[in-house]
Amino acid sequence: MAKNFTTRKENYAQWYNELVIKADLAENSAVRGCMVIKPNGYAIWEKMQSVLDRMFKETGHVNAYFPLFIPKSFFSREADHVEGFAKECAVVTHYRLKSAPDGKGIVVDNDARLEEELIIRPTSETIIWDTYKNWIQSYRDLPLLINQWANVVRWEMRTRLFLRTAEFLWQEGHTAHETKKEALEETEKILALYAGFAEQWMAIPVLRGLKSPNERFAGAVETYCIEALMQDGKALQAGTSHFLGQNFAKAFDVKFLTRENKQEYVWATSWGVSTRLMGALIMAHSDDHGLVIPPKLAHTQVVIVPIYKNKEQLDQISGKALQIKEALQAKGITVKYDDRDTHKPGWKFSEYEFKGVPVRLALGPRDMENNTIEIARRDTLEKQIRPAGTIAGEVERVLEDIQKNLYTKALAFREANSHKVDSWEAFKNILDDKGGFIYAHWDGTAETEQKIKEETRATIRVIPLDAEPEEGKCVYSGKPSAGRVVFARAY
Amino acid sequence: MAKNFTTRKENYAQWYNELVIKADLAENSAVRGCMVIKPNGYAIWEKMQSVLDRMFKETGHVNAYFPLFIPKSFFSREADHVEGFAKECAVVTHYRLKSAPDGKGIVVDNDARLEEELIIRPTSETIIWDTYKNWIQSYRDLPLLINQWANVVRWEMRTRLFLRTAEFLWQEGHTAHETKKEALEETEKILALYAGFAEQWMAIPVLRGLKSPNERFAGAVETYCIEALMQDGKALQAGTSHFLGQNFAKAFDVKFLTRENKQEYVWATSWGVSTRLMGALIMAHSDDHGLVIPPKLAHTQVVIVPIYKNKEQLDQISGKALQIKEALQAKGITVKYDDRDTHKPGWKFSEYEFKGVPVRLALGPRDMENNTIEIARRDTLEKQIRPAGTIAGEVERVLEDIQKNLYTKALAFREANSHKVDSWEAFKNILDDKGGFIYAHWDGTAETEQKIKEETRATIRVIPLDAEPEEGKCVYSGKPSAGRVVFARAY
Repeated sequence: MAKNFTTRKENYAQWYNELVIKADLAENSAVRGCMVIKPNGYAIWEKMQSVLDRMFKETGHVNAYFPLFIPKSFFSREADHVEGFAKECAVVTHYRLKSAPDGKGIVVDNDARLEEELIIRPTSETIIWDTYKNWIQSYRDLPLLINQWANVVRWEMRTRLFLRTAEFLWQEGHTAHETKKEALEETEKILALYAGFAEQWMAIPVLRGLKSPNERFAGAVETYCIEALMQDGKALQAGTSHFLGQNFAKAFDVKFLTRENKQEYVWATSWGVSTRLMGALIMAHSDDHGLVIPPKLAHTQVVIVPIYKNKEQLDQISGKALQIKEALQAKGITVKYDDRDTHKPGWKFSEYEFKGVPVRLALGPRDMENNTIEIARRDTLEKQIRPAGTIAGEVERVLEDIQKNLYTKALAFREANSHKVDSWEAFKNILDDKGGFIYAHWDGTAETEQKIKEETRATIRVIPLDAEPEEGKCVYSGKPSAGRVVFARAY
Repeated sequence: MAKNFTTRKENYAQWYNELVIKADLAENSAVRGCMVIKPNGYAIWEKMQSVLDRMFKETGHVNAYFPLFIPKSFFSREADHVEGFAKECAVVTHYRLKSAPDGKGIVVDNDARLEEELIIRPTSETIIWDTYKNWIQSYRDLPLLINQWANVVRWEMRTRLFLRTAEFLWQEGHTAHETKKEALEETEKILALYAGFAEQWMAIPVLRGLKSPNERFAGAVETYCIEALMQDGKALQAGTSHFLGQNFAKAFDVKFLTRENKQEYVWATSWGVSTRLMGALIMAHSDDHGLVIPPKLAHTQVVIVPIYKNKEQLDQISGKALQIKEALQAKGITVKYDDRDTHKPGWKFSEYEFKGVPVRLALGPRDMENNTIEIARRDTLEKQIRPAGTIAGEVERVLEDIQKNLYTKALAFREANSHKVDSWEAFKNILDDKGGFIYAHWDGTAETEQKIKEETRATIRVIPLDAEPEEGKCVYSGKPSAGRVVFARAY
């Protein structure tokens, strides 16, 4: 499998693309910018979905579904939102096709032109707030804590599998509240939920904080985000939670009767993560041997491969392998026993290594004699011969250890690639040298942020929530700064 | 809740619409023909999804995701398919908007016209078979057993919530096989799976069989279906499973190397159920008091309502109610304890009755004295005072009984409304009188089928799989017939 596989050092971007393709996670479709998520990739996304969905429900949210289409005029209602979203998007103008006059194929029927064009949702604030208008009359109708799992379309010109595609899958939460305080608490609660998911499930440490005004969601008062560092020193925004203030309530005239019997605009939040997380997961842990997936999100956590010369040996080995499989399943571990006779054990070893199965067990004739089994872990590629009788418990511990080890490794990498920088020269050098997170002072202006971006392609990824107050001078302008922010080049 | 609620007898169609709206299941959106599925409705859909998804996986299927968009030219490849699907559908022609010249709102940017228009998928055979072409080289790549959960769009002119909407949610399975036999077995396996789901989970008895050529899926060699009878005597197609032969493999040139080292076209199936099932579920069991949902698909299976005059009483009752709640949850039953002080018990009673919670428990001061509890079941509206100590086990039995009772009732209704008919007069009279399934002889021609449809609006719903061979004369033409088929007016 790993033959002709580019290493990270040779070309990180190419390594990533090859990995996604060769591990059968996704591929480009016949439609420009749209991907096909293959079963191997979709199985990981499903695991992520089911964990997140449970976390949303445990925090009081319910799911609903809103239309794919948004009337064009809806976008113009919120001034910032239209700037940010209504530009590069798929526009439906007709609702019928007809046979071509020359009899070859079909053409658009110009008699079936829509009165108002429909936009494929790039995000659903507008259609949802237009709907909420009818659902909210009084404080008794609040809060509304609703999430939607859906596909969205943003007409990106340069696309990359999972990281940036014209169509992608995501969840978008849209909540409505009585007070500013409650809406802010919701925004922060979801940020914490996303951070917990990234760290405990994806094994990716994340910075939590605010976006600068330039990087804010179009229509938000504040955008909170979690930000992760990839192995090439570039940042990846892994989730955002927006405090929308009363912007959408005002745009769609959503008022409610307060407990004090007054009419007031509703307070809002929205928040989302997408199949982009798949890109983060793949890039954060994988290596030059292929995919590395944290056990908690791996579809198959353990594979058992028999090594045999004849049917008699295989039958013996299978008996034992199936016992071990059952013992593992009883512990809630997902196991595959691969006894296909169409492929050799060596082929299977590299296959599962490349596809990132966390633990591989191998059973051969000598193991049968000695009552042993070989256990190999994907993260460190270590192999050991161990007693077969206690292997289930051992595998359970190893899976936990891999999960922890991946997080620790990613955290150590992030720490080794986080730099406090106080001079403009050092700022540029570090970016060009190895990248990473740069903690630097910033004067708080959009102009400086823009100039830094133009000169270096680095942006403010996050204004950390847990930063110590520290006075200093802006690394670019020399003007006063009240604290460091985190710069990086980003996906 | 049930005030001003139309009865089934008054107006069945209006009863249904009001039920869907007033039970907060779905509503029409600002986009013509598209619905908003509200949290109460979506929770039922999620349950249906999770059961079906487990059934698909247990039968060896995996999930994947294919693009929302289909290039226009793909539809023309399969001649029948284009006839059936490429007409009424949403067409994307542009990928950018810009500010209007007059500064008011946004307009389509005519410079951003797509070279080839994109169709929003009405079904995904074409894009999927174009993809499978690259996935299938040899018999070793087969079978492919893939399912997709997705939204699709068919530009229906007359829409009804859940039953017929421009956008709907569904699953579509698309499988590829080495042999005709295997593909046929898959088609039948899925038909059995759908029938099992309808009967055991939705409590709706279904007829299993084949569609006549007129009613076949566009591009299929055979369409198998399950067909249910609604309370107004109209049929509802609840799921279809298509044997596609080699039609799509030929249209997209998907060949494989056989075990005999020859190149052959791949055999295909496709199958799907949609949010239309929600319509069937609602219509099959509900009554003039509101929604009735089978316990296995109810989001909340039991609600506990306290009846109290003061806080002291409430505290006492709550202690006991929460104990009962825990005991029920320990049995895997979903329970809500509604101790809101904003609504009176009577209001809550009608609310949960209308929304179809299968079992309601009520606890008042007299129950506390006597160690009793009131149990009310939604299907029969019966109420009983029972000992509180053993209520958890009793509720469990009652839930099972409701599930069975709903099925039995629906089956009895279907039997009472199935008629063997041998004369054209009787055929028309029964249709106009009370509807139902009409078992009648048909001469097997499309012409007769068409004429019957024109004269009566009845169509052949299904050619039953389990029919006894019986020679007869066509009820319309008098020509010879080899067996009875099932006619009905349908949703």
